[in-house]
Amino acid sequence: MNLVLLFNTDFIADDQVQLTDRRFEHIQQVHRAQVGDQLTVGLLNGQVGTGLILSLEDHAIVMSVSFHKAPPAPLPLTLILALPRPRMLGRTLQHISTLGVKKLILLNTQRVEKSYWMSPVLKPEKVEEHLILGLEQAKDTLMPELILEKNFQAFVEQRLPDLCQNSLGLVAHPGVPDACPRAVTEQTTLAIGPEGGFIPTEIQQLTAAGLKPVHMGDRIMRVETAVTALLARIF
Amino acid sequence: MNLVLLFNTDFIADDQVQLTDRRFEHIQQVHRAQVGDQLTVGLLNGQVGTGLILSLEDHAIVMSVSFHKAPPAPLPLTLILALPRPRMLGRTLQHISTLGVKKLILLNTQRVEKSYWMSPVLKPEKVEEHLILGLEQAKDTLMPELILEKNFQAFVEQRLPDLCQNSLGLVAHPGVPDACPRAVTEQTTLAIGPEGGFIPTEIQQLTAAGLKPVHMGDRIMRVETAVTALLARIF
Repeated sequence: MNLVLLFNTDFIADDQVQLTDRRFEHIQQVHRAQVGDQLTVGLLNGQVGTGLILSLEDHAIVMSVSFHKAPPAPLPLTLILALPRPRMLGRTLQHISTLGVKKLILLNTQRVEKSYWMSPVLKPEKVEEHLILGLEQAKDTLMPELILEKNFQAFVEQRLPDLCQNSLGLVAHPGVPDACPRAVTEQTTLAIGPEGGFIPTEIQQLTAAGLKPVHMGDRIMRVETAVTALLARIF
Repeated sequence: MNLVLLFNTDFIADDQVQLTDRRFEHIQQVHRAQVGDQLTVGLLNGQVGTGLILSLEDHAIVMSVSFHKAPPAPLPLTLILALPRPRMLGRTLQHISTLGVKKLILLNTQRVEKSYWMSPVLKPEKVEEHLILGLEQAKDTLMPELILEKNFQAFVEQRLPDLCQNSLGLVAHPGVPDACPRAVTEQTTLAIGPEGGFIPTEIQQLTAAGLKPVHMGDRIMRVETAVTALLARIF
């Protein structure tokens, strides 16, 4: 936790917060902070600042907080990701959040098992938990927006063409001729397939909607590795 | 397992292998392969090829194998990584192996806890297990070399200058002026610090030995994310 993310409900005065949950335990047990110590804090969807520990009791910490800095710049990206298997989803959400993605679409595809959509990791409170851990890691405060698209056909035909307007559209796919571009600064829409990849008709439909297939070399990566590698390569 | 990695001890004839271990179980339970199916195989430190399933019994699979293709190109890199915490080490070894690192030095630094060196994940057979999983993921066969350096001082003074000869030397460090280079094709030596980073005197010593400090932007990443992001950015 490189930054303690604060919510409106934490405030007990205009410039004071009280924490009693996971954040309190982490500050106490991992940071081993003391009264008088200063921690980096951030207001959800707001600025980054400093928290001065006023009191540290058995079950609660009180900090005086002030805010003075913008969070790191978001990536200019809409990320479309085939829903990963539950075991990988939590970590992938954390990576995505750490790397600065602010709009994430989890998409159903042929090779996404139906059962993945029932995973408890997809419950809004669990998703938020992972996204918050990613923000805290990166000292960011801007909560990513998450959209679930369970109907590939409807998404690709009705909503993807609009997303691709005024945006560099890419779909990561091994074995295609074009290499993934580097040092992109423009608004981008990037699709990443499931384990085993998109099937050929899905690639055709994504291409028709405005995404250009690009590759990342010969090596087949796990989804969580591929997400990080693609974002680091492109931006 | 996108490739079944084969060892000399698997061979029961010049062109036949018998598998009874994890690989057998994976082929049976995950691939759900049948007699007559073809799988991608690779000979440890050798070529990639095809395995034709001749028999599939309760406890063993026999394949006829042939080899015809070189594995993917290695990264031109010596990676120096502060020993990660055990929980992260296994996954990080897998990522490193998948991404094509062939020389990995795990280094002690000020912020590496001494207890990490006792982790069972560091036992040669566990390390090999993770590296093999990474190779199988990337359809690679070339086992990375792993060197443990428990003495920072001795390593940096006596061995690092030689490693930096005829090589682009980099150390990832947040907040420095120079951005991490992209699309590097020359031989590279890259150092990545522990959670919390290298301490200032370590950065001075690494710089004196020939590594240039470079940053990856404002966001602080977990070690496993940073490793993947740096390799994808640099190469």
